[in-house]
Amino acid sequence: MLDLFNDTYFMNEALRLAHRAAEEGEIPVGAVVVCQRRIIARAYNQTEKLHDVTAHAEILAVTAAAHYLGSKYLPDCTLYVTLEPCVMCAGALSWAQLGGLVYGAADEKRGFSRLGKGVLHPKTKLKNGVLAAESEELLRNFFRRLRT
Amino acid sequence: MLDLFNDTYFMNEALRLAHRAAEEGEIPVGAVVVCQRRIIARAYNQTEKLHDVTAHAEILAVTAAAHYLGSKYLPDCTLYVTLEPCVMCAGALSWAQLGGLVYGAADEKRGFSRLGKGVLHPKTKLKNGVLAAESEELLRNFFRRLRT
Repeated sequence: MLDLFNDTYFMNEALRLAHRAAEEGEIPVGAVVVCQRRIIARAYNQTEKLHDVTAHAEILAVTAAAHYLGSKYLPDCTLYVTLEPCVMCAGALSWAQLGGLVYGAADEKRGFSRLGKGVLHPKTKLKNGVLAAESEELLRNFFRRLRT
Repeated sequence: MLDLFNDTYFMNEALRLAHRAAEEGEIPVGAVVVCQRRIIARAYNQTEKLHDVTAHAEILAVTAAAHYLGSKYLPDCTLYVTLEPCVMCAGALSWAQLGGLVYGAADEKRGFSRLGKGVLHPKTKLKNGVLAAESEELLRNFFRRLRT
């Protein structure tokens, strides 16, 4: 049976949120939290609007998902995010004991993986590169517009 | 001249907040943000109350300080926190380009320093061990009560 609700489907939802961030002048990163194949939280980067460096898509999504579930732990959830999480966000995902992390584009400069996979919770299943080209293009266009 | 507003003074304020956290059943960690020798933000750990792993004292304090200043960067601020920040919080302090970090007790298991000082912003001045014994005692008593 064809599964319409696969990684690409959920990452497309995260990309849609990243586009919205770009429209609002925010660095375009979007995220969704999926639990039992349902999206229970959506968020995009809002650091400019909120004057808050902690308002990354992942932090907002984890907070929203925990509120929805009434639990601060998310072992049965998967976070889809368009860009590799930074160290702060990976630390948050570790505390949340996140079940799965799927990200799109790599972030060589600020991504958590430069510090090794040990920043994540040992039980978090990791996948990357999903719709990476689309996420990279969105980020590239955003920064190009900023410079002109 | 005797400077009453020194590291011990500000750390005592953070400890007072950590005590309040303990009274509310939260792991006792408190933090204040100081700018031009004035406390502009106070916070303590609220992960249980808010069902939110990101509600560490440091994250709440940085968010409050940024709201107060109307700026997401805190290069002229020093954060005093009773326990060594975790990786998530150190990542947040890095994004905020924090001017100074003073912490009390070390956290060998979850503290950021196990990953090296590179997790912080290169311009953040670091000091530790201020009122460390008081912070350790508070944490020890808290976990002892939890177990009984």
